[in-house]
Amino acid sequence: MSPALRAFLDFVEWRPVVEAAARHASSAPGRERVLALCPAPELAEARLRQARTEAARTLLAADLPDFAPLCDLGAAFARGGEEGLGRRELYAAARTVLLGRDARDLCAGLPPLAQLLAGPAPDAGDLEAAGEVLNKIGPHGVVLDGASDRLAELRRALGAARAALAEALRRVCYDPRVAPALAERSPVSLRGQPCLKVRAGEVRRVPGPIVQQERDVLWVEPDAARAAYNQVRHLEVDERAEEARICRQLSTLLWPRREELSALADALAFLDAHLALARYGEALEATAPELLEPGARRLSLRGLRHPLLVAEGRCVPLDLELNGPRTVVVSGPNGGGKSACLKAVGLAVLLAQAGGLVPARAASLPVFASLRAVGPPRAGLEEGRSTFQAHAADLAVALEGVEPGALLLLDEVGTGTDPTEAAALGQAVLEHVLARGATVLATTHLASLKGFAERAEGAVNAAMGVDAAGRPTFALRVGERGGSHALDAAEAQGLPPSVCARARALHAGES
Amino acid sequence: MSPALRAFLDFVEWRPVVEAAARHASSAPGRERVLALCPAPELAEARLRQARTEAARTLLAADLPDFAPLCDLGAAFARGGEEGLGRRELYAAARTVLLGRDARDLCAGLPPLAQLLAGPAPDAGDLEAAGEVLNKIGPHGVVLDGASDRLAELRRALGAARAALAEALRRVCYDPRVAPALAERSPVSLRGQPCLKVRAGEVRRVPGPIVQQERDVLWVEPDAARAAYNQVRHLEVDERAEEARICRQLSTLLWPRREELSALADALAFLDAHLALARYGEALEATAPELLEPGARRLSLRGLRHPLLVAEGRCVPLDLELNGPRTVVVSGPNGGGKSACLKAVGLAVLLAQAGGLVPARAASLPVFASLRAVGPPRAGLEEGRSTFQAHAADLAVALEGVEPGALLLLDEVGTGTDPTEAAALGQAVLEHVLARGATVLATTHLASLKGFAERAEGAVNAAMGVDAAGRPTFALRVGERGGSHALDAAEAQGLPPSVCARARALHAGES
Repeated sequence: MSPALRAFLDFVEWRPVVEAAARHASSAPGRERVLALCPAPELAEARLRQARTEAARTLLAADLPDFAPLCDLGAAFARGGEEGLGRRELYAAARTVLLGRDARDLCAGLPPLAQLLAGPAPDAGDLEAAGEVLNKIGPHGVVLDGASDRLAELRRALGAARAALAEALRRVCYDPRVAPALAERSPVSLRGQPCLKVRAGEVRRVPGPIVQQERDVLWVEPDAARAAYNQVRHLEVDERAEEARICRQLSTLLWPRREELSALADALAFLDAHLALARYGEALEATAPELLEPGARRLSLRGLRHPLLVAEGRCVPLDLELNGPRTVVVSGPNGGGKSACLKAVGLAVLLAQAGGLVPARAASLPVFASLRAVGPPRAGLEEGRSTFQAHAADLAVALEGVEPGALLLLDEVGTGTDPTEAAALGQAVLEHVLARGATVLATTHLASLKGFAERAEGAVNAAMGVDAAGRPTFALRVGERGGSHALDAAEAQGLPPSVCARARALHAGES
Repeated sequence: MSPALRAFLDFVEWRPVVEAAARHASSAPGRERVLALCPAPELAEARLRQARTEAARTLLAADLPDFAPLCDLGAAFARGGEEGLGRRELYAAARTVLLGRDARDLCAGLPPLAQLLAGPAPDAGDLEAAGEVLNKIGPHGVVLDGASDRLAELRRALGAARAALAEALRRVCYDPRVAPALAERSPVSLRGQPCLKVRAGEVRRVPGPIVQQERDVLWVEPDAARAAYNQVRHLEVDERAEEARICRQLSTLLWPRREELSALADALAFLDAHLALARYGEALEATAPELLEPGARRLSLRGLRHPLLVAEGRCVPLDLELNGPRTVVVSGPNGGGKSACLKAVGLAVLLAQAGGLVPARAASLPVFASLRAVGPPRAGLEEGRSTFQAHAADLAVALEGVEPGALLLLDEVGTGTDPTEAAALGQAVLEHVLARGATVLATTHLASLKGFAERAEGAVNAAMGVDAAGRPTFALRVGERGGSHALDAAEAQGLPPSVCARARALHAGES
């Protein structure tokens, strides 16, 4: 991933959004696919993903098969080798085969999904093998009694041996020489080893090794139960060996089709991911975006909501309609939502290009060739650089090789230095990006950048609104310049009223 | 701790400084005392701490007793009760008594330290008790063989029993029926239990319970060694009981003097902390500060170095000399060390009032009644506030109840909003602080604040220097205004030269 895209994902806080979407997946591999989502850099790929999510959306009302047992079979085969699928993996592989068959039927009328599943289809041999596995292995990888005659016999013998051990222990506990020495009436188990808890002073009344000490209580494994315990342990070892033999045999059965089965599991994981995106979109009341050619001069987001703020129930929808201009200078009050506006737009673009639905009433977006952003600088003595140096370094990364069709989000361009130099730098950056045919949304408090947006061809102002009392409305008004209302914001944060009054007087005198 | 002081400690990065100082302590309680250091808010207390550190410094050349065994005896007595000091705590208590005696002799000619140790002196009974403890308990809390006849006897018996167990195991291993079944030639121990590693197929050749399974190898506790093993375990239980009895008895011996001993340990921990401060000061080639009355109008720091940057070998010493003015507006280039200058001054003040030496050639400082700071704002969508809102909230905390004799460090006052409003707010804040007789160091890029410092009675400019080529020299020049040189800094961070050239042209045209 390029440093510029990494900065973009960090700035818009992509991670919590994909985490929220991933919670709608049914399987672990589906969740992983959602968490790893990145924007498709080309129109065809982005449209294909959208078509798949749209098709998945039509399936949500249907009676879907259970995706939960799906696992990453490619990794399981690579880890285990020919004989080495574990019991849980065998169960997952068998369920994957059946799921592949059901999903194929389900998606038959939905070309974008049918094509996803077309390659790795399970054949009759796979279905037979899956049936054999499921006859022998149950959910959570339990090897069933009927998996072999020997296993059934061992399990019967184990039952009897465990009963004999319990009886032997019961008899020791009621032995008149032992009973008075016991700190607890019933036997206990320490890592499977049967023990009696004996008071320290009377330990010689209970023959057997001391296994552990707890203050004045000693755990003794009673000699009287030793033979029965040995029998149980030997049978357990035999049982495990027989289970392992059965798993090896079933593993060998699936091994020749490992590549097909791994590909099938992979395709089903993607199907689960598209179902998750569809469910997440429904939960957000989101809409399928119209994707335009890279470089298209139209961008329309109506009723756009920030997906994380929607979830918290605090969100004013934004309208952003661009026909021609590619440079938007966003101004407005402190705490009025300028940064949140940039992030909401960035997330809409990411969702659209990643195959997700966009939380808006309607969305038309070009596919952007690259995504770049500059957020609040990370500075400090440890990093050995100042706020402005960090900001300039971030700007350098974002501008590196900026091309037509790129998108830049610049939060407070020129922050942290002399405002006259900041304004000159900001304007030079906007001119540079504009000349290269890229799209840029930049927030600012600097009057001269608002003036530039008014004058320059291809640039436009946009303001976060305030009401009559100067309070933020969080609505975006394209074509307007916004004021910062810093002194109102400062007073709202608890600065002494006398300080704010004096600052207002100074400001009125100066401007 | 007040939120304002907390913000000050965070801004100047006090934690890594006390951590560096604490590494010079010899004992755990000494380290804790250094880590917990806070500035003394009053002159008498600050001077007392300085006198103690100064006295400790004269001891560094002496042959010091070992402080390492010191422990927090108050907590140990509270935890254990009358009979409950552990073996390590008993050893520490005895060593504390001897250390108390030695430290008293050592500090006899040093009144500030002698007074610290005057109260909780060990008496003859304490020394006798300590001698008895050390006869029975050695370093790391080992209970010595000679602590009781019974213990000596048990240890002899244990030695014999362990030899018998080893012989029994050796015999099993060489048994011609057993040897061919072994996966490993020698016995192994599992949580003290003696086991043989046996190949799974041949486990029935080695009578005894299966203790654990490792793939095809079973760990069996051989029946043939069982009697010897039981004997060892029983003797170990008896040994522990006898050791516990001895500790209870010694604990009871110290219990009546628990308050005196706890106070002694506490005083010795403070002595260790002052020794650590003295050693840290020597390592930094630091100097004892002259402490002035709160509200004094003089502040002189000559050759001041930032203690963390000194350690990294990158540090230009600063000179700050104030006689009268209490408001300093620091300007200068981006990345030129303005914030580092504020932090170095803040750390010098903290060290001086906490009892430490100041990394400067000479230092005279008033004792400040309160310490306040505003650093880079912490903002974000999660906090639900913008950069400027966070900054204003921090300012409100720093200004809350600001009194004569307070110190404020303000890094980029008014950052993150319209610069004309920021300038008005910044000036109003500086006027407010100035009127209340507090001292303030504020960094800025705003021309109007530099102008204010030039005009206002009691205020002064200071600039971080640049050389003829515009590169930062990191030297502080009181009485001068500094330029931001933002475009040079931006170019140095890798911004495209064409963008920087255009920005320079725009800036030249405007200003």
